[in-house]
Amino acid sequence: MEAKAYAILAEGQPLEPYTVERRAPGPEDVLIELMYCGICHTDLIIGNNEGGLAMYPVVPGHEMVGRIAEVGSNVTNLAVGEMVGVGCIADSCRTCHPCQAGDEQYCDSGFTLSFNATDPNGEKTFGGYSSHYTVNQRYAVKIPEGMDPAATAPLLCGGITVYTPLKRFGAGPGKRVGVLGLGGLGHLAIKMSKAMGAHTVMLTSSPGKVGDAEKLGADEVVLTSNEADVQAQAFSFDLIINTISGPHNPDSFVTMLKREGNMCFVGAPQTPIPVTISNLLVGDKTMSGSLIGGIPSTGEMLEFCAEHGITADIEMVNMDQVNEAWDRIEKNDVKYRFVLDLASL
Amino acid sequence: MEAKAYAILAEGQPLEPYTVERRAPGPEDVLIELMYCGICHTDLIIGNNEGGLAMYPVVPGHEMVGRIAEVGSNVTNLAVGEMVGVGCIADSCRTCHPCQAGDEQYCDSGFTLSFNATDPNGEKTFGGYSSHYTVNQRYAVKIPEGMDPAATAPLLCGGITVYTPLKRFGAGPGKRVGVLGLGGLGHLAIKMSKAMGAHTVMLTSSPGKVGDAEKLGADEVVLTSNEADVQAQAFSFDLIINTISGPHNPDSFVTMLKREGNMCFVGAPQTPIPVTISNLLVGDKTMSGSLIGGIPSTGEMLEFCAEHGITADIEMVNMDQVNEAWDRIEKNDVKYRFVLDLASL
Repeated sequence: MEAKAYAILAEGQPLEPYTVERRAPGPEDVLIELMYCGICHTDLIIGNNEGGLAMYPVVPGHEMVGRIAEVGSNVTNLAVGEMVGVGCIADSCRTCHPCQAGDEQYCDSGFTLSFNATDPNGEKTFGGYSSHYTVNQRYAVKIPEGMDPAATAPLLCGGITVYTPLKRFGAGPGKRVGVLGLGGLGHLAIKMSKAMGAHTVMLTSSPGKVGDAEKLGADEVVLTSNEADVQAQAFSFDLIINTISGPHNPDSFVTMLKREGNMCFVGAPQTPIPVTISNLLVGDKTMSGSLIGGIPSTGEMLEFCAEHGITADIEMVNMDQVNEAWDRIEKNDVKYRFVLDLASL
Repeated sequence: MEAKAYAILAEGQPLEPYTVERRAPGPEDVLIELMYCGICHTDLIIGNNEGGLAMYPVVPGHEMVGRIAEVGSNVTNLAVGEMVGVGCIADSCRTCHPCQAGDEQYCDSGFTLSFNATDPNGEKTFGGYSSHYTVNQRYAVKIPEGMDPAATAPLLCGGITVYTPLKRFGAGPGKRVGVLGLGGLGHLAIKMSKAMGAHTVMLTSSPGKVGDAEKLGADEVVLTSNEADVQAQAFSFDLIINTISGPHNPDSFVTMLKREGNMCFVGAPQTPIPVTISNLLVGDKTMSGSLIGGIPSTGEMLEFCAEHGITADIEMVNMDQVNEAWDRIEKNDVKYRFVLDLASL
């Protein structure tokens, strides 16, 4: 079927109306009528070809929520009318060890990104800035009852990105967790860390964000622009979730970690960052990275969020405002995630 | 008592004969007649005031082995004539939680380095380039029967430095462990990793070190100067012990780690090193640091080495050759650790 969409047709051009062909559902597929799609910074990086990966035309979008419109003959777990989400992962081999373990993001053959990628059939993927999406049933995750579909969309990438390391590294009662950077990822990390029972501290260089962080549930806010405040935090954190995606010096944050503490990066600065290794030695400290999460974990994360009343704080925009929204993201001018209302297509 | 020693009297001067006063053993002290002292690169860093920490005169040395010459009235666990070693830690508060847990290196009050430090009594510590050393009994570790005392000396710092992360991060059967850098630390890491049962791989940029690494017990040697060889190792290591103490780019080694793999730094480059964070994200990888180990762990390490016949490969030098030995260390011209024969004082 023909689906409405917005695409960038060539490098340097804005997003504009476009039409994509969605395949008719095969036996294992579902066709989703999309309702909302979050705007993630990765959409901009790929759409603007910052990493040289763009395959134009690019239809961005990998935080999709919608209702099942059609199901293939072998689809038993999902029914027409059910609300589902699709995140970064649109396909994978489904047979390798990581896939069988539910770690599709580490598929031995490489997973298929839900946009700007080539799927196992050789077809190019067009993302969620669109009216419809066809995907294998495995990669459509049920949205728990009662969740607001628009505010749930950003959980499909942003949510799982911070949930994975919070869970892996044991955020919970008795733990002191710092969240570095208050944006799309950071605001979800505060909410989830707090819901997991950890003492949750916002680390920000902006005095203007103190009140916002407290409203989001942070137990404390530390102003990292104040050297004395930073020094007072030495050896005090079990875990710091570092959501900063720009160039920065991580040394002072490493000094805030307890012995055997861990700073986990979930943003990917585009240039190497300098690390003073002796700060890792003194305290047997660790710097880690974490990349999204698999499909079962995404379902688990959504259940956790439903149970704790967590969704993203969003600003809804119509499709014809998408270029303005992208400009504002470049200026960090969003609290905290734009979501496209696809009914406006 | 007056003890013979070698000291650097002022910045830029060579080591020269010197006399230090050793305190008479208090009730908890032992006086050790030193036999051998390893030369660790840290001696040079502090002795030459590279980090601005030197308090001249400096008597270096923190890899000491000798025999108990006198014991204080409350010393029950050590007897005159027994062979003991002293490493980096000459004192600590002995009452804080880390001390009580045997993690004296993380004493809340800071541990007393065995040279160029000020002990809890306000006395300056002079290290093991000396005929005698007085120390609280807790910090004198028994050398197991049958170990060569000279070749054991480097285990007191170099040995525990690599033993700690190998044990913490589970080097053993079924694990693939890389050792980066073949020097004092690296050659001990190969021996210990192999003895722990891990598949042990030397990672070196020097074709000339291939044979040496194999002699030390490495199961494989990977030439890191060969880009194709490096790429062939992608996602293959559970753990890499990084012993490089100079500036270097760690990115290609991070790519060699398996998912959730860990590169642990045990050397401390003096300037920040650049890290491409996306390499940590893709594979949920980790970079850690590790700092020596506590007194109980040092004893455990010595028992492990005794059981597996592990000592350092050393080149023995007389005290009047010490300045030449330091020069050769700066040129990496030693296989793999110099040990001072203190009988030559």
